[in-house]
Amino acid sequence: MSEAPKDIEDLVALMARLPGLGPRSARRAVLKLIKKRALLLIPLADAMQAVAATARECLTCGNIGTTDECDICTSSKRANGELCIVEDVADLWAMERAGIFKGRYHVLGGTLSALDDVGPDELRIPQLTRRVQEEGVTEVILALNATIDGQTTAHYIADQLDPMGLTVTSLAQGVPIGGELDYLDDGTISAALRARKAL
Amino acid sequence: MSEAPKDIEDLVALMARLPGLGPRSARRAVLKLIKKRALLLIPLADAMQAVAATARECLTCGNIGTTDECDICTSSKRANGELCIVEDVADLWAMERAGIFKGRYHVLGGTLSALDDVGPDELRIPQLTRRVQEEGVTEVILALNATIDGQTTAHYIADQLDPMGLTVTSLAQGVPIGGELDYLDDGTISAALRARKAL
Repeated sequence: MSEAPKDIEDLVALMARLPGLGPRSARRAVLKLIKKRALLLIPLADAMQAVAATARECLTCGNIGTTDECDICTSSKRANGELCIVEDVADLWAMERAGIFKGRYHVLGGTLSALDDVGPDELRIPQLTRRVQEEGVTEVILALNATIDGQTTAHYIADQLDPMGLTVTSLAQGVPIGGELDYLDDGTISAALRARKAL
Repeated sequence: MSEAPKDIEDLVALMARLPGLGPRSARRAVLKLIKKRALLLIPLADAMQAVAATARECLTCGNIGTTDECDICTSSKRANGELCIVEDVADLWAMERAGIFKGRYHVLGGTLSALDDVGPDELRIPQLTRRVQEEGVTEVILALNATIDGQTTAHYIADQLDPMGLTVTSLAQGVPIGGELDYLDDGTISAALRARKAL
């Protein structure tokens, strides 16, 4: 049975499809939106329409921007020759928040996965080898997630790039800053021990 | 520093104000929206605009509908004389999902709270006493949350209605259906024991 008008039910159903929201939290969110119509609901609808009209994938790297080539790809301030490979745009944003990497990115759009039938051609891997040759890339940094699929993909890419004679690195693995040993998994502690450094 | 175009940053900031979403889950939600532009982003923007244009509070009971008087208040199928008092519209929806109550509602819009400086006039309490007199209400069911503020408000309303000579009831307290005693708090078990019934 329907407890709310159809317009509102429809909005709840759409909101419930967002990651992090279920049916119950979608209802709460919609009620808050209705209570704050001028401050939240209308601005949010407008912001969504603006993003729907302008957001697009960068043809070169797969980042999301408002033009065919994203701000990072076209920026003259970014270092040439360094390419950081990430799984998706959220990871690119995370790298940018860290603010330390000054090269450019390549967004794969996922990881290789036998289970989900994702092969190299479903990802942006053919474009990667082309970029490496055309842009004079000297170092490729693999910033993939430390998951099985992420690391499988990293090894596959490293193999592909091996004949091209460039440096391929990956993010260091170890104890996160602020991390307590007691709360870390065994794999992380082992990795950190193997990669220990002289003080 | 800004890692995404301004349009997208603005959308993330607005999404992060929804209950249940923080900055990180708002970013993930926005990336999903952008990936599913035709299936999710545009329908969601349209649904929000539709709700912004049509949703309004029922002048009688405070429910949210699309007209000055909500579907429940105007329905001839609802029993006259029974009024169920709830804190907010989410509670009204929860009652309607249960599908057992056939009377009408009165949405208070919150609870009395000395801490937050909410008195009877900030809630829909003056309208309640007026409705009780004008609509020939014979039973008022207090379906307020089993919190301190909810129960304080219930007692205040019961006191206000006392001289009017009608039945005032409240939802039974006890073990929830499917509830395991071992996981229940002491207060609930005590309440269920005090209200025990002959089989």
